Amino acid sequence: MNETATLWWDTGTESIRYIDQTLLPEKYTIVECRSIGQLATAIRRLEIRGAPALGVAGAYGIALATRVCQRNDLPAFFSDVHTAAGILRETRPTAINLGWGINRVLSKILPLQDIPSARRVALDEAEAVASEDTACCHTIGERGAALLPDTCTVLTHCNAGALACSSWGTALGVIRSAIKGGKQVNVIACETRPLFQGSRLTAWELIRDGIDVTVITDSSAAHLMRTGTIDAVVVGADRITHDAVFNKIGTYMHAVCARYHNIPFYVAAPLSTFDTQKGERDVIIEERGREEVTTMGCRVYVPDAAVVKNYAFDATPMNLVTAIITEQGVLHPPITIDSILSFKSTK
Amino acid sequence: MNETATLWWDTGTESIRYIDQTLLPEKYTIVECRSIGQLATAIRRLEIRGAPALGVAGAYGIALATRVCQRNDLPAFFSDVHTAAGILRETRPTAINLGWGINRVLSKILPLQDIPSARRVALDEAEAVASEDTACCHTIGERGAALLPDTCTVLTHCNAGALACSSWGTALGVIRSAIKGGKQVNVIACETRPLFQGSRLTAWELIRDGIDVTVITDSSAAHLMRTGTIDAVVVGADRITHDAVFNKIGTYMHAVCARYHNIPFYVAAPLSTFDTQKGERDVIIEERGREEVTTMGCRVYVPDAAVVKNYAFDATPMNLVTAIITEQGVLHPPITIDSILSFKSTK
Repeated sequence: MNETATLWWDTGTESIRYIDQTLLPEKYTIVECRSIGQLATAIRRLEIRGAPALGVAGAYGIALATRVCQRNDLPAFFSDVHTAAGILRETRPTAINLGWGINRVLSKILPLQDIPSARRVALDEAEAVASEDTACCHTIGERGAALLPDTCTVLTHCNAGALACSSWGTALGVIRSAIKGGKQVNVIACETRPLFQGSRLTAWELIRDGIDVTVITDSSAAHLMRTGTIDAVVVGADRITHDAVFNKIGTYMHAVCARYHNIPFYVAAPLSTFDTQKGERDVIIEERGREEVTTMGCRVYVPDAAVVKNYAFDATPMNLVTAIITEQGVLHPPITIDSILSFKSTK
Repeated sequence: MNETATLWWDTGTESIRYIDQTLLPEKYTIVECRSIGQLATAIRRLEIRGAPALGVAGAYGIALATRVCQRNDLPAFFSDVHTAAGILRETRPTAINLGWGINRVLSKILPLQDIPSARRVALDEAEAVASEDTACCHTIGERGAALLPDTCTVLTHCNAGALACSSWGTALGVIRSAIKGGKQVNVIACETRPLFQGSRLTAWELIRDGIDVTVITDSSAAHLMRTGTIDAVVVGADRITHDAVFNKIGTYMHAVCARYHNIPFYVAAPLSTFDTQKGERDVIIEERGREEVTTMGCRVYVPDAAVVKNYAFDATPMNLVTAIITEQGVLHPPITIDSILSFKSTK
């Protein structure tokens, strides 16, 4: 299987390169990103998306900021880098990894006393974030694969794959590792309205790896659970508080239906996704523009006078989660702040 | 509120007229239908859709068949009408009302001894089917309205409105009657993938009547149930066997989530939707073409190599149904074949 990277640093041009995820599966386009404004727009437009990939983007974003800030005195330089960090941080309110990646690089460079060192260390740290993410996904993949039966059908929602990470994926990492280990896994990808990250991205990257995939509309999942087709649900996460898993809208619906049908519901996510200081009520659920729901291709599917509510995420309470698969091990119920903290502290 | 008709007989041209539902909300187009082949294509393409409307289409279809069959001897004439009935019947396997409307007109004309009488009686009976359907929807609406709180938010799925009936609607009939009776009803319409009958049709006809409507993606419903936004779910039905309600894919998901959140789940349907001779396992769930899922407007959202399963309907078992609202009264649990038959016999 290929190790598709979704974004990386291009040393020659000192810029970020990324696959524009809004154009898949019709067009495979690599974009060169040379400014913080361009990166912020790419994140806001979901050209770059997926929780771990946003962590890597945040980290590379600071490396980029250290290059595009042209000030010569250190305080002015760091002031510009901080401004850049603020611009990037505000692009997506729900995903935690973006801020985590930004902070990780910032905390490494702020103690430094000269600009060339800050530039070098920022890039080194961003590269470390990316390579650790890849290693992390492989570990999550192996731990999650052990939970799946030798022959099974797995439902996944949105894209928690290589395109959402530096490579391999979290939920799709579990599927890839299971297949690599010899298991027979049928994959059912929910298309994931409104932006079709399941049908556009998950299907695209699995097919690219030679893994068969069946695409369904989101609301078909419960029907397939009832007919006994689904053996497990595996999804990623954008933020995990001590009491809830925030992930793409629709995740909660799958969790409720999985519980009703006694189907295990697994969340695959690195520890960087955990936000133990917060509870569900502290997290803002991002609402996005109506045009994502109303307009597809050249057609309009909603009358202008209708109100549209476009929730990008929902919260699944811990009691519906069968297990959270992390790089440090698998969290089983009862999943509490103490059990989460014990994992974070061993990192 | 207007009484929008979705299809009707045009006496001058001796043809069926209908609103092409595939073009809404962008274009409001009335189509003149002069042949059985054209009608069958219109039903298969969902230009005409919705369980009660299909009953009316089936009835008018036989009236049309009695006009386009040009044979002069009675056996040959009835043979042609039967062929036409067969063509129409095969267009949609899951909805029962189509066959019911066809059979109701056929059974009236088959005993007749001359072609002019057959033509006249066929049209009279088809007109009776249409006007009874309108009366039926108003009765269902009033009975259903009595079940709703004075101020409430109702979630509906797909389109069980005037466009799906001769007018007023079943699920939307309940909402219209409640509003007409002075209740404050907020309507949330699930967009209803893959063909967006919720966002395209339900939103369009409610706005046309001056009723506010909020459109959400299908998978947002559970999230809104959890946040306490939804007070009741009201849907229509394409076929009701003694053990299950067949309706648009996604209905079962809403029923499971409604039960989980203790929200009432109502089905509004005329008795012509009941198929007491069958159980769930006897009914074929129609699977439709992949292009309905893969292609919107001028864009493709699924890679060619992905398998697509496009289930048009699902089955909701009776134990998840809070009540079925019919023109004869409201069926409460336990909803059994005996309780259904007692209603049918009083018709």
